[in-house]
Formats: sequence, C-alpha cells, structure tokens
Amino acid sequence: MARSKKKSIVARAGASRTPALSWTIGGPEYDARIGRVRQVLEQRGLDGLVLFHPIRMAYVSGFFHLSTERPMAIVISREGGIGGLIPHLELGHFAKARGITNVQVYPEYPTGGGKHPMFHLADLLKEMKLNKRGTRLGFDSNGYLDINGYDGPSLSEVVAGWVECVPARDLVDRLRAVKSQQELRLIEESCVWGNLAHRLMHDAVEPGRSAMEIWLDASNDASKMMVASLGPDYQPMTAAFGFPAIANFTAGSSTSDPHALNSAMNLRPGDVLVTYGGADVGGYVSELERTMFLGAPAKDAAKAFEQMLTLQQVAFDAIRPGRRFADVETDVRSAFAELGLQEHQRHHTGHGIGLEGHEWPFIDLGSDDLIEENMVLSVEPGFYLPGVAGFRHSDTVVVRADGVERMTWYPRDLQSLVVDV
Amino acid sequence: MARSKKKSIVARAGASRTPALSWTIGGPEYDARIGRVRQVLEQRGLDGLVLFHPIRMAYVSGFFHLSTERPMAIVISREGGIGGLIPHLELGHFAKARGITNVQVYPEYPTGGGKHPMFHLADLLKEMKLNKRGTRLGFDSNGYLDINGYDGPSLSEVVAGWVECVPARDLVDRLRAVKSQQELRLIEESCVWGNLAHRLMHDAVEPGRSAMEIWLDASNDASKMMVASLGPDYQPMTAAFGFPAIANFTAGSSTSDPHALNSAMNLRPGDVLVTYGGADVGGYVSELERTMFLGAPAKDAAKAFEQMLTLQQVAFDAIRPGRRFADVETDVRSAFAELGLQEHQRHHTGHGIGLEGHEWPFIDLGSDDLIEENMVLSVEPGFYLPGVAGFRHSDTVVVRADGVERMTWYPRDLQSLVVDV
Repeated sequence: MARSKKKSIVARAGASRTPALSWTIGGPEYDARIGRVRQVLEQRGLDGLVLFHPIRMAYVSGFFHLSTERPMAIVISREGGIGGLIPHLELGHFAKARGITNVQVYPEYPTGGGKHPMFHLADLLKEMKLNKRGTRLGFDSNGYLDINGYDGPSLSEVVAGWVECVPARDLVDRLRAVKSQQELRLIEESCVWGNLAHRLMHDAVEPGRSAMEIWLDASNDASKMMVASLGPDYQPMTAAFGFPAIANFTAGSSTSDPHALNSAMNLRPGDVLVTYGGADVGGYVSELERTMFLGAPAKDAAKAFEQMLTLQQVAFDAIRPGRRFADVETDVRSAFAELGLQEHQRHHTGHGIGLEGHEWPFIDLGSDDLIEENMVLSVEPGFYLPGVAGFRHSDTVVVRADGVERMTWYPRDLQSLVVDV
Repeated sequence: MARSKKKSIVARAGASRTPALSWTIGGPEYDARIGRVRQVLEQRGLDGLVLFHPIRMAYVSGFFHLSTERPMAIVISREGGIGGLIPHLELGHFAKARGITNVQVYPEYPTGGGKHPMFHLADLLKEMKLNKRGTRLGFDSNGYLDINGYDGPSLSEVVAGWVECVPARDLVDRLRAVKSQQELRLIEESCVWGNLAHRLMHDAVEPGRSAMEIWLDASNDASKMMVASLGPDYQPMTAAFGFPAIANFTAGSSTSDPHALNSAMNLRPGDVLVTYGGADVGGYVSELERTMFLGAPAKDAAKAFEQMLTLQQVAFDAIRPGRRFADVETDVRSAFAELGLQEHQRHHTGHGIGLEGHEWPFIDLGSDDLIEENMVLSVEPGFYLPGVAGFRHSDTVVVRADGVERMTWYPRDLQSLVVDV
C-alpha cells in the first residue's frame, strides 16, 4: 500500500549521511595529491620532501594557518608517512591536517625547549627514517620563511652530513598548476563574488567621492552577501585579515604604475581607473581587472582602450593545450609591436592563479613549459603611458581542450566601462 | 601702523612652505636609518648589505610595494651608495625610494632578458664594487622570497666565488626594534583607530548575528572614518588588500586554539570571544586583543578571566629597560605556576610590533637580549582550556625609562567586556 511504502522511505531517510554542498577540498582529493607527490618523488629519486611554505603545506594537507615567527613544516616520505613540525600553539588546530602520521611539537620560538625548532625538524626526519645515510631529501626552501623576525639554520645545516638536500620548490607548484574539478568549482565561485564586489564598486563610482570609501563599502557589502549566501560553514582560508570578497582600484595618473598602492584620493572627472575584484572561496582566489573611465574618454584614451582589448583578445586566442607559454607571449609581443606599443609593455601577459593570487606558471618569454588543460591563468597584457594612465583588463580563464573559457564574465567593452559624470 | 604691519605679515605668508601633518616617515629619518645601518656594517666588518624582504626594503628607503614573483632587493654599501634591483614594472613607482644611487632594471621574471634576475643583482653588486675580491657581504636571506611561484639561485651562487656572504638578518631587525618619536606617533595613531574598530565591533555583538557580519561592518566603518579623518594623503602601506583599520574575533570553543581562523558562525549566548583590533598608519600597525563574554560568564570562566588579567599585570610590571626579555618570561611563568595554569600556557608573553604585526624581539625564555627604551611590544600572556575557551588580552605598550606605558587604552576589566544578552 502507498502508506506503508511512504513510511519505509521516511524510515530510510538519514540512514546514510547526506553531504552538504561544501566550499572546501575533500579528504580523498588530499590523499590523491599526496599520491601524486610520491609519484614525482619516485621519478626524481627523492626519498622525501620538506615543505615550509604555508600554501604548499595547505595544498598537501588542508592545514590552512597563520604563519608567524614560529617555524612549521610538513614532511612527505616517499615510502609512507606524513610528518608535521608545529609549535605547541598549533597543536589543537593541527588536528585539521589530513593523514599526519608523525608530529614533532616544540614549545615555542625562539625557546625551542633547549634547542632551535629546526633541530626538532631533524628529529622528525630521523623518526621518519629520512635522516639516514644515502637519503635524498627535496625541499621547497632551504629553511623556514623570512617572516616576523624569525631566524635560524637552514635545513641542510640541521640534517646529518650524509643527507643530500635537493631543491624541489617546483614539485608541488607544478601539481598545483593543473586544477581538479572541485578546485575549478571553488575558483568559479570566487569569480561570482569578485564580479559582485566589482559591480557594487562600479555602480558607486562618481566624481568627488573618496576612492577608498567607494571600494571599502563595495567590498564590505559583497563580503557580507557572500558569507550569507555560502552558509555558516564558509571560512576564508587565505584572506584571514582581508575581505572575503574584495574590489578596489587605483585612479588617475598613478595607474601608469602597474603596481601602484591604493590611496584615499577623491575622484575627478576624466580619471582613468584600473580595478581589481576577487574573493576567497575555500582558499582559492580569482582576478578580475578592468580599465574604466570617469566620463567619456578623450579620443586618444579611447583608442588606447581598444588597443588593449585587441591585445587581450590576441592572448585569449593564443592559449591552448600543447603550446608553450613563451609562444603565447611571443604572439602578444608581435601584436604590441604591430600596434607600436612595445616600449609601454611593462610585464608579462599573465600567471597561474589558485591558492595564491600569482602562482606558477607564467605567460612569459622565459617559460618553455607546455600549457595543459585545466590550468587556470590570468590573461592581462597591459600597457602604461607614463604620467598619463595604465590600460589593463585581467580575466581569469580555464584552459579547455580547444582554447580558453573565461571564468570572469564582467563586461569588457568601452561603453560598459564608462561612468557618466 | 597696524595696517602696514598686517600687510607685511600677509606678504610673508607662504614665503616658506608650511609642512602639513604627515602620516609617513620623513626623508631625514630614512637618511638616519641608513647611517645606523652603515655603523653596524662597520662594527661587523661587512662591506655591504643585501635586503630582499619588502619590509626591510621599505624601512631603509620608504619604498613600500607589492611583492610578487619578481625579485627585488636593496643593497647598502658601507662606503656610500644605495642600489636597487627592480623589474621594469616598478620603474616609475621606485622613484619613491630614498637615496638610490644605482639601479638595475630587468625586463621581467622569469625572462630576465637572457639571464635570471639574480644575475642582474650580481651586476648591480659589481657596479657598486661589492663583487670584488675580499668583499664581505651581509644578507637578510640567501636569495629572494619564496612567494608566488618564484624560483632561482641563492645570492652566494650568483656572486663571485671570492665574495664572502654572511647571514645578517638581525642587523636591520634590531634597528627596527627601537622606535623613533615619529614611529611612536604613527603607532599611537594606529592604536586610536584599532580602538575605534574594536568599539564599533563590541557594540554590535549580539546573539544570533553572524560573527563575520559584525566585524566586517565594524572594520569597514572604522576604516572609512579613519580615511576621512587622516586626510586624502593617507595611504595604507602594509595592509594593501585588507582593511586600513580592522577588528575581528573568533568565538566559542575555537578560541581554545590561539590562532584559530575566523569563521562565519552565528553567535550564541555563553560564547567567549577573543578579539583583535588594529590599523595601518604609515605602514605601522598595533595590536589590541580582548577576551569578551556573550552574557555573564559562569563562575569558572570569570575566575579564568581574572587570572588572565593578573598574568598580564605581572608582565606589565616585569618590563623595564635593562632587563632581559627572558627575565620577563620567567616572571610570567612563575605566575602561571603559582596559579596552577602552566600546562595551559601555549605561547610566549609577547613580541615586537611596528611595520609587521609580529617582529623581533620576543618576550621568550630563549631571548637573552636586553629591553631598551622606546621598544614597542605586545603584552599578551594567554591560556587555553582545550575545548572550552581561550583567555587572552593583548596590549601594545611602549617601553619608557621606568616601565611600560599602554598605547591601547581599551577597557580591560570584566564588567566592561561582558555583553548583555
């Protein structure tokens, strides 16, 4: 009977756990990352890998944390076992790290409990059989970060003399460059909220207002909307002291410096704006940049804008799997030359993006590596007229089998980016 | 006659420039810093110093910038001359650096224009006569930062074999530890706005609201007020992607991890909050932290709060010029033991603060250095009851001849920090 059937469905409900949509990377994906690290260790004849950088530590374990003067590291043994070096301060929090088999906890920096924390790392390596004769040990840096007044010996100074320490910073960075489906989903969601922050900022731009007031409000509103929308489990992972979602801009002649710092200037008609929008979703970020005008641009500026759009289209068209990054840069530079703008090009065409705002690889003449499917890149050939203005759009794109797909879909055309005054 | 006298005053007005109140460090102070660096180079028998860290670069030159994959460095020669290694991207912006006599500009990373940017640094050193036989060259790190996918050779790998490269990270950090009058003024102003951000947050705390919404709004409002108050020349220097003024907090049992990450949880009656407030004024920051209660605390929690207050008072009393930092920590640890709380102490009592949120020196058993007048320190002995809550106030203090003066004057007592529910 229908009634009893319904009852049985109700009875079954909840017997297996229904996972909620998650804005993080799941445990199995971390396990797969460790598996890939071990494959590369095997290929390179390395017995283990020591990672000091907080983002690489998070990438292999899910342990997002605040870096301070207290050194931390994760050690991956090729034969099995994942070790952690942590200060006592992080003991509870470190429970979030996945797959840890060995932990060395030191009391504090610089105390160390009678010895420098780096010698606790040597103990950890010994415990993991990675400090013995014949060991080849990869590292991302030969010691902990230069941060917050930390100082101490290098890795090669604390391990036994018979251990060979081998630079291997690129090992994890290369794995990071090709994104998984869940990583792409988090970056797509980052783009959603970067777009919103940018839209709120865009709509608030007007002469006489403080640049900083405009983008603070937009970032705050977008962040609150994002937090309300993604649910109470949402946590910013890499933007711990910033906005979860952010938009900002530089304006006026300072835009002719590609990396000018933000200021509190009041906007004036005729200002050129170079903007930024992004958000932290599960630690993943994105990049949306637009060149905007406060009032209709003069003929020269409108022409420069269209040239910039052309350059970006050349870059979009040049990216596909199997080409070298340097080939893309060569195409873009040819277009710069054709437009007579080569002297105003000040930086390469783009960079990888994911857990860091800039990450390996780079769309650069010096990059011989091949483009691969599911890499995520910024595409932003810009040029800068000294004392006048900068012209740059940046879009975050994912590499598909036949070219790029834009993840940031904010309008690119001039009409959409002129604010009436 | 009165009239002609008045006229002559008017005529004189503007004949000499009237400097406006400035939220930056002036040129002569940068020159003095370079002078002190050269004195220490002399004492240590060093011919020059290479600085890769962005904050140390800013400290000696005023060049605040965004660090990316593109290496930058400042070189100080003992005999005279200050050099800069920069990417073409920063050429205009680098004009803000004070006293630069030699610049090496490379086109881009990784391109380098035929060679890695670190070899352009070697060229710079050669040009400055710091790559010759017998040279002793100090460095803060033996190569550029591990950031944004950068990779490259160490300093000692790119200089001539006859150059002796000597670790000297502490050289600038020790100078930074003792603050000038203008630095103290900037940190005092940072405290003003950190206090305001904290007050706005405090007044908005109530059960049912999202933790993140509360502190985002407070930080945004305080930042806008600060920007409006400090004038259009105000520029955040070290908080480029964050709030100029910020307050935030962790709540509930996560406070038992000293460095828990922020979350979007909704507040509930009974929650313990561990807060933070600060601001960037001319690049200088401060630290204000309070333990707060959502509703009157249970007897145990109230007792823990009073114990925490006692520990902080012990620390305040222990700090004066001429004592060792380790002596202060010893006093605080004695108080922990007396209160039976030693197992819950998870970190040292405090750290230097200035251009970085944590900087050398540390109030730590491992710190044999002497306390000096005009050092600025955080004082924050905290303890953490696992799964229950953390108890920590942090105040920013300046060391005076006879003890400490609090720069953060936010209320510390229980009654002021309980939010009625």
